[in-house]
Amino acid sequence: MPYFDNNATTPLLSVAEEAFIRASRDHWHNTSSPYRSAAQARNIFDKDREWLAKLLGCPASAIVFNSGATEGNNAIFNFLEKKHSERARVVVSEIEHPSVLEPALAAFPSRVDLLPVLPSGVADLSALPKLLENPDVALVSLMAANNESGVLQPWRKCLQICRQKGIPFHTDASQWLGKMTVEGLGDCDYLTACAHKFGGPKGVGFDIISRSETGFNSQLGGVHEQGHRAGTENLPGIHSMVAALKGLYENLEQTRVDQEARRNAFEKTLCQQVPGTRIIGDQSERLWNTTYAVMPSFANTRWVAQLDKRGFIVSTGSACASGKEGPSHVLAAIGIERSEARRILRISGHWDTSSAAWNGLNAAFEEVWKELNKTKSSAEKTRVISV
Amino acid sequence: MPYFDNNATTPLLSVAEEAFIRASRDHWHNTSSPYRSAAQARNIFDKDREWLAKLLGCPASAIVFNSGATEGNNAIFNFLEKKHSERARVVVSEIEHPSVLEPALAAFPSRVDLLPVLPSGVADLSALPKLLENPDVALVSLMAANNESGVLQPWRKCLQICRQKGIPFHTDASQWLGKMTVEGLGDCDYLTACAHKFGGPKGVGFDIISRSETGFNSQLGGVHEQGHRAGTENLPGIHSMVAALKGLYENLEQTRVDQEARRNAFEKTLCQQVPGTRIIGDQSERLWNTTYAVMPSFANTRWVAQLDKRGFIVSTGSACASGKEGPSHVLAAIGIERSEARRILRISGHWDTSSAAWNGLNAAFEEVWKELNKTKSSAEKTRVISV
Repeated sequence: MPYFDNNATTPLLSVAEEAFIRASRDHWHNTSSPYRSAAQARNIFDKDREWLAKLLGCPASAIVFNSGATEGNNAIFNFLEKKHSERARVVVSEIEHPSVLEPALAAFPSRVDLLPVLPSGVADLSALPKLLENPDVALVSLMAANNESGVLQPWRKCLQICRQKGIPFHTDASQWLGKMTVEGLGDCDYLTACAHKFGGPKGVGFDIISRSETGFNSQLGGVHEQGHRAGTENLPGIHSMVAALKGLYENLEQTRVDQEARRNAFEKTLCQQVPGTRIIGDQSERLWNTTYAVMPSFANTRWVAQLDKRGFIVSTGSACASGKEGPSHVLAAIGIERSEARRILRISGHWDTSSAAWNGLNAAFEEVWKELNKTKSSAEKTRVISV
Repeated sequence: MPYFDNNATTPLLSVAEEAFIRASRDHWHNTSSPYRSAAQARNIFDKDREWLAKLLGCPASAIVFNSGATEGNNAIFNFLEKKHSERARVVVSEIEHPSVLEPALAAFPSRVDLLPVLPSGVADLSALPKLLENPDVALVSLMAANNESGVLQPWRKCLQICRQKGIPFHTDASQWLGKMTVEGLGDCDYLTACAHKFGGPKGVGFDIISRSETGFNSQLGGVHEQGHRAGTENLPGIHSMVAALKGLYENLEQTRVDQEARRNAFEKTLCQQVPGTRIIGDQSERLWNTTYAVMPSFANTRWVAQLDKRGFIVSTGSACASGKEGPSHVLAAIGIERSEARRILRISGHWDTSSAAWNGLNAAFEEVWKELNKTKSSAEKTRVISV
């Protein structure tokens, strides 16, 4: 069943499943134990950490494995709260994931400055210098790519500005890692990533922690992760996550080119088939897999259900925001009105999505568009009769 | 290779591996998403939670899935710190796992009262009433079974005493769950458990949170786990953990009887083969899989290495404490001297450990004892000659 909600979560890649099973069968020992099989597990684990550090361009000791991006984001803001005085402030973009926004607001109540976002979906860095005039800014946080719109954010430029000012910079790279080039990621003072967004297992992720931070610890009770996070390491899960990244980065440039072409063709056809469809962020650089579309009519839940019936899975937006009332904070930030937000669809492809699947999705959209209009006409007819 | 360090971690049971793969292939969707396959995943997830709640005897809404016992223990003390005034105190037994002791001390600095432990390895509840006279006690924490000695703790009695006083009670059941009857576990106000201690996957566990606690949240950024812990649920991992428990509790009483007999026979033979061996806690009720032995001579690291060479994996004690200087805090609490602590071995069997494996371990101990004595004699001879 063609699945177009990969920004919510991805299926486990077969290389990642194999790596999980292999590690789970052969290297499940506690890496802290004092015998040879434990030392072998430790060796696998160290190699995975080193490979990942090399990929990202950071020291192996800067990586802290954890249970995913929500833990990773919470841990960073909790740490900064403990580290800094009660005057300290943070700057976060207004389109961050709730797992950044909520911990930031909890750790720095009424001391969070929001970096605004342009109607293009891109954070407005021209607003940054003024925000950084305040001498109490302890962190700037700007995600690498937005999970709803797929719009790429100017995180490299933001890092540069922060560096000039001597202010630590954090990026939540959950949607970026595995899809885009890693260049520069390892330079960030703090970074968050999450395996299940790129074909790795759920419940696994990592932070990069600034090299100068020796006091970071997100869980007490053991010396694991260089003292940064206690708890028996999830070696099979981590090994599986690393295997997913190895697989994806082997051939990423070709994937990006192919998939972007397919996604663009899909969007072009969609806008012809369903006149009045508007693609959010289409004037900006975006993830190659994401389409965020305002449909000309009908509630997004009806589109999702009708497409689902035809075997195509798309979403009403962020899975985390689904079920909530009103438009998502991301849509509000880029100036989408409430009435439009009810018509929004997020379509996010996979590294392996075939042209046939994209074409099939187009055909399904066309069918659903006719179907919904038919239902509407007959509903209108009924209304006319019953008046 | 016979593995006797199951208190450190266990291999993934085959039922748990199968459940992981099945869920990972069929129900990997984000349970918060608005389409049918996500609803199916949500359904599996709800059923797992309900099964677990029924097993433990608590409401399904009291269970908060997480990444393991270290997270679970940290989350409870962090929550209590936020909830209570700066006068609040906690009582924790002096043999708790570091993932209880360290967060307790961090959350309640100089307001942690230690519940002492008798030389038998059992917490001394006669000391509790006096500790509870202080009106500021916000929690009593006593593990269900000790990870090093395997000695069962009087947690049910402790819960009763706390209930009479209206004081919340926490038990870290990491070593108990999967090995002992679940009776009463669901009555605890707070409970911690961890899948990889009972044949489930690493990086998965859960807390029971007191029914009256609506404000508990360990990770912000989403409404998962009834608002208690944000983050996309690790459904395959949780499904795998539940499958492990289902498998173990089907036949637990027989396992307990068989394995306890094998472990006891092993201990009897060991004490005959290696005269002067002392079994810690042998006058107390213990987990059926654990032997904590002070060997009459030779450093434990030499025993471990020699047994490892012969294909038998045992440990020097808790994996979390290994590599640390000096005796573990558990040994210190029960009055084991430093010189004895250097000779301690922990042997912890599996649900499936065969009689042949236990007998083989006895034979290996006998060989190693001879080998080490031989080396000693020749070393003494060398010393005599070189003088």
